[in-house]
Amino acid sequence: MSKYDKLVTNAAGRVVPTIINGKPSVPYMGVGKYRPEGFKASTRIASCADYPGDGNKVVASLKDALSRCGLKNGMCISTHHHFRNGDLVANPIFDIAHEMGVKGLIWLPSASFPCHEPLTKYLEDGTIDHIEGSMNGALGRFTSDGKMKGLGILRSHGGRYQAVQDGEVHIDIAVIAAPTSDPFGNCNGVNGPTACGPLGFALADAQFADHVIVVTDNLVKFPCIPWQINGNYVDYVVVMDKIGIAEKIVSGTTEITKSPDRLLLAEWSARFCDEAGLIYDGFSFQAGAGGTSLSIGIYFADILRERGWKARFARGGSNKYLVKMLEEGLVEYILDGQTFDLEGVRSMRDNPHHTWTSPFTSYNYHGKGNFSSLVDIVILGATEVDVNFNANVVTHSDGYLLHGIGGWMNTLFGKTVILPVPLFRDRIPVIRDEVTTLCGPGELIDVIVTERGIAINPLRTDLIEKMKNTSLPIKTIQELKEEAERICGKPEKPKFTDEIVAVVKWVDGTVIDSVYRIAK
Amino acid sequence: MSKYDKLVTNAAGRVVPTIINGKPSVPYMGVGKYRPEGFKASTRIASCADYPGDGNKVVASLKDALSRCGLKNGMCISTHHHFRNGDLVANPIFDIAHEMGVKGLIWLPSASFPCHEPLTKYLEDGTIDHIEGSMNGALGRFTSDGKMKGLGILRSHGGRYQAVQDGEVHIDIAVIAAPTSDPFGNCNGVNGPTACGPLGFALADAQFADHVIVVTDNLVKFPCIPWQINGNYVDYVVVMDKIGIAEKIVSGTTEITKSPDRLLLAEWSARFCDEAGLIYDGFSFQAGAGGTSLSIGIYFADILRERGWKARFARGGSNKYLVKMLEEGLVEYILDGQTFDLEGVRSMRDNPHHTWTSPFTSYNYHGKGNFSSLVDIVILGATEVDVNFNANVVTHSDGYLLHGIGGWMNTLFGKTVILPVPLFRDRIPVIRDEVTTLCGPGELIDVIVTERGIAINPLRTDLIEKMKNTSLPIKTIQELKEEAERICGKPEKPKFTDEIVAVVKWVDGTVIDSVYRIAK
Repeated sequence: MSKYDKLVTNAAGRVVPTIINGKPSVPYMGVGKYRPEGFKASTRIASCADYPGDGNKVVASLKDALSRCGLKNGMCISTHHHFRNGDLVANPIFDIAHEMGVKGLIWLPSASFPCHEPLTKYLEDGTIDHIEGSMNGALGRFTSDGKMKGLGILRSHGGRYQAVQDGEVHIDIAVIAAPTSDPFGNCNGVNGPTACGPLGFALADAQFADHVIVVTDNLVKFPCIPWQINGNYVDYVVVMDKIGIAEKIVSGTTEITKSPDRLLLAEWSARFCDEAGLIYDGFSFQAGAGGTSLSIGIYFADILRERGWKARFARGGSNKYLVKMLEEGLVEYILDGQTFDLEGVRSMRDNPHHTWTSPFTSYNYHGKGNFSSLVDIVILGATEVDVNFNANVVTHSDGYLLHGIGGWMNTLFGKTVILPVPLFRDRIPVIRDEVTTLCGPGELIDVIVTERGIAINPLRTDLIEKMKNTSLPIKTIQELKEEAERICGKPEKPKFTDEIVAVVKWVDGTVIDSVYRIAK
Repeated sequence: MSKYDKLVTNAAGRVVPTIINGKPSVPYMGVGKYRPEGFKASTRIASCADYPGDGNKVVASLKDALSRCGLKNGMCISTHHHFRNGDLVANPIFDIAHEMGVKGLIWLPSASFPCHEPLTKYLEDGTIDHIEGSMNGALGRFTSDGKMKGLGILRSHGGRYQAVQDGEVHIDIAVIAAPTSDPFGNCNGVNGPTACGPLGFALADAQFADHVIVVTDNLVKFPCIPWQINGNYVDYVVVMDKIGIAEKIVSGTTEITKSPDRLLLAEWSARFCDEAGLIYDGFSFQAGAGGTSLSIGIYFADILRERGWKARFARGGSNKYLVKMLEEGLVEYILDGQTFDLEGVRSMRDNPHHTWTSPFTSYNYHGKGNFSSLVDIVILGATEVDVNFNANVVTHSDGYLLHGIGGWMNTLFGKTVILPVPLFRDRIPVIRDEVTTLCGPGELIDVIVTERGIAINPLRTDLIEKMKNTSLPIKTIQELKEEAERICGKPEKPKFTDEIVAVVKWVDGTVIDSVYRIAK
């Protein structure tokens, strides 16, 4: 079987396959244009007669559980990434599969991290056929070098929920690492020695997988309260010595930036929001965990404190800075999808105003609405932006798969999306004629803030009008691009073969772009 | 169309139809014998493109919402009963349907109450074809008199979830009365002027209905925290002046009994549990809201306090007595399906150890286990018990439909099920040769406690062994029956025609018995 087939040019002008790993796939049709048909996926009706009456679903080992689930060639195995780079559960699954001689598996993580590099050997020997999820670091390099057997599929957090819900991908066995669980499988991420916060990334897995295994290192007597995942979805519970290293949930950059350029980006972004009237008593925002974003949060906090205002809610990833705002009363609620540090975990555990969410509540585009479009200000990063405000977040300018999409794509539906980005990185311009890989359609991206000026999307005439008397350096995006090229020279395009190694799915499951093999 | 067709005798020896309101139906096969096949029901895949981006789903009126949902002849409309006899939402729905000239509706309440008596006029004029849910009081009389157009279907709380989940009944429009909601439809029952506690009875409705309307009298700014029902399931939000009368959630009997006979039942039941070793440090129990049950709780509390023990959890319906046990530290957790008084509401709102549950977590027999089988001691009532320990909870000895099943049938899966019942009521024996309507198979009912003696199910040889030296008056159920008949005389059987007016479904969706029309 070919990895992909039947190329077409989609509505964004990108060439994409319509057959992916043997299954038909819809090309991107534009924002909000594709209307799904049919019904959500469904699981087999179970019966309590087949489950232990005393509620004890504990089995001897992960291997035992996987065997009971009928692990076999070609199955799709899912995991979540709430432990981020401290995950100790995904690798052993595939060690066991390898030991059992199982081949051609699909791994559906909600994200992968450098700690998963050992899995490259199973991608090489065919234990794993391909990954549907983020391929970055070593896994990204492996993919970009054309070594993965099947075609990689990149989805946003919301897109993963949508794909599972819609039956676009069927999970045979979900393995849910849970910092606390009872023998029935009710579990949470806020208690126990390896508490990591919420477990929302595993919700779709629990709801839609054929078989669900909870793996814990903190088994408590029924009932495990709170339950973030219902034991009623769970088949087996496995106790391991250690499921994760909680300290490693801390993201790369969780300290406020000290770089003068980044501080400038932060200050200008915050000033822009304020002057454009986007900050008001009761507003809402979502900022990532990078140093610049964190610094913007500090500016927001200053503005709120000074005026006696409150943000109605902030969307997490939470961290100590956001928790401080909550505790100071500057933010009424944190709606949190993942905790980026242990202060976030503590706050989620103890503060009813710090609420866990899931890709279902926040990001699923094939729902009756979701939270992402209710957010006033969204602060995001990007590896590249082009003159049409399109942005890239998965590949670097050298063409290598570098990042997963995370919630990035989903949050583009916020009311005003601002990308504070440096004009260039390592003397390579960030603003370009065309992004290497299209992840975010320009019509959803409103403002680009660089250290040499701020570009407002021409579609946002309201913002242009509001900012017409600002002292901030408003420029066109073309001007910013030219300025970058004046300094760094015209950037070279990455050299690709014409072989597709992965595709990027839009929030509605359509294929927005292809990722190509690096030419050597 | 005939209401029912193709009668067979089921595994309990009861004659039941296999065609009900035109749809095929499986006869009862015995406890745990019927194994479901196929997949759970599923709803159409939605798209955020069809919902307001600002998250505001508020429409002008209930009529407007029902019209937008395409209300038409023959649809199934569901409501929940968390307001119990204080519900102000169900009746207006059918007023509107009547006004719009819609006919042949199915009403699927999670329970009905005397406040719903006005709906008899719509049952008469054909606006409502039949009720699937509890038919008691005036609605029960109406049904028992053979006046309902379609066949009534009685289900337990768990059976309702199972039926909706399995696609046995399809909800076209769910109307969820919510004491607090935001414009997105995130809602809860713990806040607001008409707070009623949890909203778990509406969970299946939210998850599986085609169209979901939330009706509230307390609209708050997004986000409504906590959300017990996700707005992501909701199509429209309607604001009404008043959706319920919170005080009326108080059940009939919520005071400890003062009747000497009932106090004796309570004392003996508690002593029985203690002497049989069912009470231990970390045990669990579920007792209803009747005066006898409440008094048993007080005895349990005394035992725990005296010995320095704790119950690990108690299953609610919660009330002030149970809340007091929680606050005194005699119970670690309340797992609560519905609050029976305002102290229960307060505790659920403020105490993280007072957790709301749903029929999905607690009672759904077609799940991967549920909570009901994990409970050590279950105290229940019954209208009749027979010499084979079968019990009836829906019809009275005069044959009239008197009660809904509630969670009664589901809780039979508890480890030890005890029925404290008077030997006779109004000089009519409660223990009989055969129950009028079979709701609970005798194999699941362990102990009958009456004021003249206690009968242990012969299947429970362990309990018989443990109680062999007790000073409690252990008798056979036959002895109890004969004693009742000595005092009251042999009871007359109710006089029925051979027309079936309703059926009782077992927890797995099979038909366990039929209810007949009263002969006049």
